[in-house]
Amino acid sequence: MKIAILLYDRFTALDVVGPYEILARMPGSEVVLTALRRGPVRGDLGSLALTADAALDEITAADLLLVPGGPGSERMHGEPAVLEWLRAIDATTTWTTSVCSGSILLAAAGLLTGRRATTHWFGPRALATFGAVPVAERVVFDGKYATAAGVSAGIDLALHLAGRIHGDQVAQAIQLITEYDPQPPYNAGSTTTAPPDLVAAVRTNGLTVPAA
Amino acid sequence: MKIAILLYDRFTALDVVGPYEILARMPGSEVVLTALRRGPVRGDLGSLALTADAALDEITAADLLLVPGGPGSERMHGEPAVLEWLRAIDATTTWTTSVCSGSILLAAAGLLTGRRATTHWFGPRALATFGAVPVAERVVFDGKYATAAGVSAGIDLALHLAGRIHGDQVAQAIQLITEYDPQPPYNAGSTTTAPPDLVAAVRTNGLTVPAA
Repeated sequence: MKIAILLYDRFTALDVVGPYEILARMPGSEVVLTALRRGPVRGDLGSLALTADAALDEITAADLLLVPGGPGSERMHGEPAVLEWLRAIDATTTWTTSVCSGSILLAAAGLLTGRRATTHWFGPRALATFGAVPVAERVVFDGKYATAAGVSAGIDLALHLAGRIHGDQVAQAIQLITEYDPQPPYNAGSTTTAPPDLVAAVRTNGLTVPAA
Repeated sequence: MKIAILLYDRFTALDVVGPYEILARMPGSEVVLTALRRGPVRGDLGSLALTADAALDEITAADLLLVPGGPGSERMHGEPAVLEWLRAIDATTTWTTSVCSGSILLAAAGLLTGRRATTHWFGPRALATFGAVPVAERVVFDGKYATAAGVSAGIDLALHLAGRIHGDQVAQAIQLITEYDPQPPYNAGSTTTAPPDLVAAVRTNGLTVPAA
């Protein structure tokens, strides 16, 4: 299946590469990373660039579309070429998917109106502003639209997709190959498990690490 | 702190980007992706390239070195410029780290002799061949050497490192920002939890997804 992953300046790297690592391993996957222009596209932290191997206008259809999040996504809300491309590709997809604030971009393109969707815990209000129905879950399916919560949640999303597309055995094989047996040393990955004062500090700091 | 991440042809993308997403968010981190030559370096699945922003000979010291794994790592065992660079950088580091078969490359460079280390579940024999002591754990610390198991284990490694370098609060803040609250839909991420026939099939297939 043809899989198109959108890149734009200041994307979040793991939003792209978490799902990529799973989806690209599915039998028959043909993945293309695409952006307004071909060439390197730099992520939000400045020190990493992924190559867009095709310009958006070279990609006219996809079986699966993945839109990552990142601080640069908000700027894309006002980029007609990107919004029009998202709508055109969505008209061809079997699955339209996102990670983190990528769902807000899908909603800004008018693709999630009235649909249940998730995003980074920082972003549900913005998602609602564009007419989607925010759900505080890690992975949300609504018809062909599948959205993931923040950053690392794209890995879980992609395993769900692999299972729906190719069955449990293929998805489990990919989980085993990528040794996805998570053992984080802390239990601070959600606003319900992290210490409340830490959640407040990170929220106040706009998703950067607060001073100790 | 200066963080150098090695790239080489046919690296595994998540081995790089999982830890990158955590380590680059630490206060004061300066990350550089580096390879034999500057420019795009293509990963093992062919459809993704990361940019090396510096050539190896431009990087003469690092506080933290990260060596990812991937099918291309074996070829580096016979690449003197890479082995010599690893030894030279290691002489300057506070932490020398790896993900997946990256530990086998560190061992091939002579840096893990007699040390406890982990690698992808596929690789402990190769690790032992180069004089390391394989340990079947997800993250292993032996002095300044910290190694992670396969692919996704680099995320857990990086959180451990963030905690040791900056303390629990910073590490937890990064876990919260990246919403690392894993909820895989299957429990097949290790050889002890995946169905035994699936483990056998993946092993026989050389880490590609077996036909259903």
